[in-house]
Amino acid sequence: MNLKYGVVGTGALGGFYGGILAHAGKEVNFLFNSDFEHVRQHGLKVDSVMGDFHLKNVRAFGKAEQMPACDVVLVCLKTTNNNLLKQILPSVVHPESLVVLIQNGMNVEADVQQQFPDLNIAGGLAFICSNKIGPGHIAHLDYGRLIIGGYRVSNELVLKQVVTDFLLAGIPAELSPDLQMARWRKLVWNIPFNGLTVVLNATTDHLMNNPETKELAYQMMLEVIAAANASGYAIPETFADEMMNLTRHMKPYAPSMKLDFDFRRPMEIEYIYSKTIEEAAKAGFEMSRVSMLEKQLQFIQTRYCQA
Amino acid sequence: MNLKYGVVGTGALGGFYGGILAHAGKEVNFLFNSDFEHVRQHGLKVDSVMGDFHLKNVRAFGKAEQMPACDVVLVCLKTTNNNLLKQILPSVVHPESLVVLIQNGMNVEADVQQQFPDLNIAGGLAFICSNKIGPGHIAHLDYGRLIIGGYRVSNELVLKQVVTDFLLAGIPAELSPDLQMARWRKLVWNIPFNGLTVVLNATTDHLMNNPETKELAYQMMLEVIAAANASGYAIPETFADEMMNLTRHMKPYAPSMKLDFDFRRPMEIEYIYSKTIEEAAKAGFEMSRVSMLEKQLQFIQTRYCQA
Repeated sequence: MNLKYGVVGTGALGGFYGGILAHAGKEVNFLFNSDFEHVRQHGLKVDSVMGDFHLKNVRAFGKAEQMPACDVVLVCLKTTNNNLLKQILPSVVHPESLVVLIQNGMNVEADVQQQFPDLNIAGGLAFICSNKIGPGHIAHLDYGRLIIGGYRVSNELVLKQVVTDFLLAGIPAELSPDLQMARWRKLVWNIPFNGLTVVLNATTDHLMNNPETKELAYQMMLEVIAAANASGYAIPETFADEMMNLTRHMKPYAPSMKLDFDFRRPMEIEYIYSKTIEEAAKAGFEMSRVSMLEKQLQFIQTRYCQA
Repeated sequence: MNLKYGVVGTGALGGFYGGILAHAGKEVNFLFNSDFEHVRQHGLKVDSVMGDFHLKNVRAFGKAEQMPACDVVLVCLKTTNNNLLKQILPSVVHPESLVVLIQNGMNVEADVQQQFPDLNIAGGLAFICSNKIGPGHIAHLDYGRLIIGGYRVSNELVLKQVVTDFLLAGIPAELSPDLQMARWRKLVWNIPFNGLTVVLNATTDHLMNNPETKELAYQMMLEVIAAANASGYAIPETFADEMMNLTRHMKPYAPSMKLDFDFRRPMEIEYIYSKTIEEAAKAGFEMSRVSMLEKQLQFIQTRYCQA
């Protein structure tokens, strides 16, 4: 099955994952925003630990209406821009298309499904360290694993083919049988470290080297795990220990929310924090520490970041 | 009863409360640190909303050993300097002396009592806006109420006389029948606003004008009240509403811990936070939000403030 791909939001994630599919020979149509003219003239450059490459002829578009309908649309926007999907998606899909939301947080699929009740939707979780370092120029620094799971998928074969296409392009991709579980597990790390690095103006190593914040990060991981368990997603507490161990051995790292804050961009508070807190509350579980961090972030966002 | 006073820690609090007693004609012996030479030459200046005054001949001392034994010793140090008391107190007390700890936080009396098992100890809670603005120069900007309560007092008459002396000097002083209750009640305000203004680099008005941090401050007040109640000190939840109302009508305010942070001085984390959390834990109550704030403050202190 030869799938025609589209990428919405060609930044650090979309530029890398879309770029590597195109580099592997797939048809990939990219929707650009500010980088459109640059990429049309100079192509897309990806500096990657897996090997650098330069796509000279990119199927680049500046407007969604000019895109062809694609079989698979990778949505790589920050969730803070998900309000744009209402206008973009109708132009880039056909009735059988599969939209893969490669985004952080809780219940992103549900919100898109509500706007497009008949759309085929999957979620993607990127475990990657990648940045946009210039117009049409992506630096892929480390990792790259992609977990994909179906949300509402009428044709499972398409979903499997997407995973296969990524694997053939060299990406460690896997199909998750339980997308919601995968999202909860990713939040175990994202919730403490995204927010605490912003509120305490620090990188992961600072938080890990201080016994108080190390303990706090661990407590918050346990709170996410307890919320997941209350919601019916069984994650063992030892998973928090694994995540702490992993973080201890990471190079000093500024998570995506810290970068957003440093550049005074809107932070993904809603999908990483508010929706998770809501989801736990539905199961009768109060996330007291996570709620506190959410409120601190809301304060910082209102005071320092443009919406 | 004509009491001879001593003041240990002549800063914003000690300079004001000791100064006003001396101004009213009481004998007050002041222990100075860096300001000693200045005050010996120029006296002590107090600019007060109650009326300015200038004490030209101050019983000023640079060393505790040179102080006379006093009937009443007002300890107005920051609790971060309480390690000095072990050396200072023996020089300034006689067997019947009463030491009044005019300090913030939980269990300051218990810790001093442990070092001096036979000492008469009371606690004082200052509701005042006062700053040291130069050597031997205090600015008293607003309020001034002083609540005093006995901790271990062999002669209640001395305690009553202290309150009377303050009243005669114009200070709205009152004797509390329950010092521990008074400390819990003061912490209801101090715990949210001292720490949050530091972590979020804000003044009280910023926190009150943002719906998220206003809610968080309120939740933290309720957590302190719940901890007090669990510890056997009945404070109604409506007290949090009163405190929020009071804060809403305050001028923009940087609490003492925010000033300590701004000047990179050690913060009173131990007695305002850690000891309170400990006290609640003894009663089986976990202060989850307050503990989180404590850990954030410990991180900030280690990273930015000299110990």
